[in-house]
Amino acid sequence: MKGFFITMEGCEGSGKSTQLKLLAQKLNAAGVDYILTREPGGSEIAERIREIILDGKNTAMCDECEALLYAAARVQHIKEKILPALAEGKLVVCDRYIHSSLAYQGAARGLGREYIETINSYAIKNCRPDLTIFLNIPPERAFERKHGADEDDRIEQMGLAFHQKVYKGYLDLIGDYPEFTPVDCSGTKFETSDKIWQLLKGRGIVGG
Amino acid sequence: MKGFFITMEGCEGSGKSTQLKLLAQKLNAAGVDYILTREPGGSEIAERIREIILDGKNTAMCDECEALLYAAARVQHIKEKILPALAEGKLVVCDRYIHSSLAYQGAARGLGREYIETINSYAIKNCRPDLTIFLNIPPERAFERKHGADEDDRIEQMGLAFHQKVYKGYLDLIGDYPEFTPVDCSGTKFETSDKIWQLLKGRGIVGG
Repeated sequence: MKGFFITMEGCEGSGKSTQLKLLAQKLNAAGVDYILTREPGGSEIAERIREIILDGKNTAMCDECEALLYAAARVQHIKEKILPALAEGKLVVCDRYIHSSLAYQGAARGLGREYIETINSYAIKNCRPDLTIFLNIPPERAFERKHGADEDDRIEQMGLAFHQKVYKGYLDLIGDYPEFTPVDCSGTKFETSDKIWQLLKGRGIVGG
Repeated sequence: MKGFFITMEGCEGSGKSTQLKLLAQKLNAAGVDYILTREPGGSEIAERIREIILDGKNTAMCDECEALLYAAARVQHIKEKILPALAEGKLVVCDRYIHSSLAYQGAARGLGREYIETINSYAIKNCRPDLTIFLNIPPERAFERKHGADEDDRIEQMGLAFHQKVYKGYLDLIGDYPEFTPVDCSGTKFETSDKIWQLLKGRGIVGG
C-alpha cells in the first residue's frame, strides 16, 4: 500500500493558499484520508530551518546557503512526515517541493538545475511526486495580488524582476518533469479548484 | 595579496581547542595578522544553523539533513568571513572545515565522500585550505579525555564506535587530500604545539 503524493507550486500571490484550502474542503467532503503539509517545514527540525530561510533580517544569506537549507529541510520533512504517511496509504498534499527549488534557486538565483537536482538527490530519489499542480498565472498579476498583503518574508521581498525569473523557471520545467502539470488560473478561484479536482479524478487519486 | 588558510581537525577530545589557544598565543607573540574562526558558525546566519545542528534535542535529524546543514553553514561562513579576510591578506585559522564533513558525515554516517564533495562543491571550489592540521590521536584516548567533561552536544553524544569510524574516516583522507597533514599528539600539549608551529614555518606561513 502506497499513498499518492501531490505537490502544489506557483509564484507568490498565485492563489496557492486559497487552492489548497479549497482542495482540503473537497477532500474532507469526499472522505479521503490525507495530510496537508508544507515546505520549507512540516517537521520540528524543518520548521526551525524554515525560520532561518525566511527571516527578513537574513539579507546576507548567499544563494548556495539558501538552496542547501531548502534541501536540508526537505530531506528531514520527507523522512519524518511524507514517507511515513505514504507508507500508511495516505494522500499527501504538499505546499511547494523540489520544483520550487528548481524555479527559485535553480533558475531565478542562477544556480542551475543540475546543482539543485544533485543537492536534493538523496532526499527525493524515493519520493518524487505523482502529480505536481502548477498554478499558471503571469507573475505581474500574481505579484500585484500578493504584494503588500501582509508582512513580506525574505523571498517575498524580492522585486518583480526576480519573480518573473521564477515564473520562467517554472515554465521551463514543463515537459522535462512529467509530473509537472500547469493549470490555467484565468477563471475564478472556484473554476481553478474544479480543474484541479478533475485532474485528481483523471489520475485516479480521488474517486469518480 | 592573498592570505593563508589553515584549518584544524581532530576527533572529539583530541585537544583541538587547547592547540588553537596555544597557536593563537604564538601568532600573537609573532605579530601575525590573523583571524580565528570556527565551523559550523563564524557568521550570524551560520551560527543560527549551528544551533540547529548541535541541539541535543534534535535526535530525529537524519544524516543527509545534517550534512546539508553543515554545507549551508560552511558556504555562508566562507562568503561572509573567510574569503574577505583572505582577500585582505590575513591568515585565517578555522576550527574544523570540509574534512570534518568527510570524516563525520561521509565516513562515519556513511554518506560517502562523493556526496559530501558534491554538496560542498560551490562552497569550497575557491576556498581550499593551504594546510589542514589533523591532531592524530587514537579515538579511545581522545574520547576518554573528552567524555563527560561538560554538557555534550548532539554529535558528542554519539558513542565510541561512532567516533572510531570518524577517526578511520580521517585516516583515509591522508594521501588523497594533499593539504591534510597528520600531527602526532603522543607528547605533551606543548610538544604538539611546537610541531604545529614548525609546520607553519616550513610552509612559509609564519616567519622564522
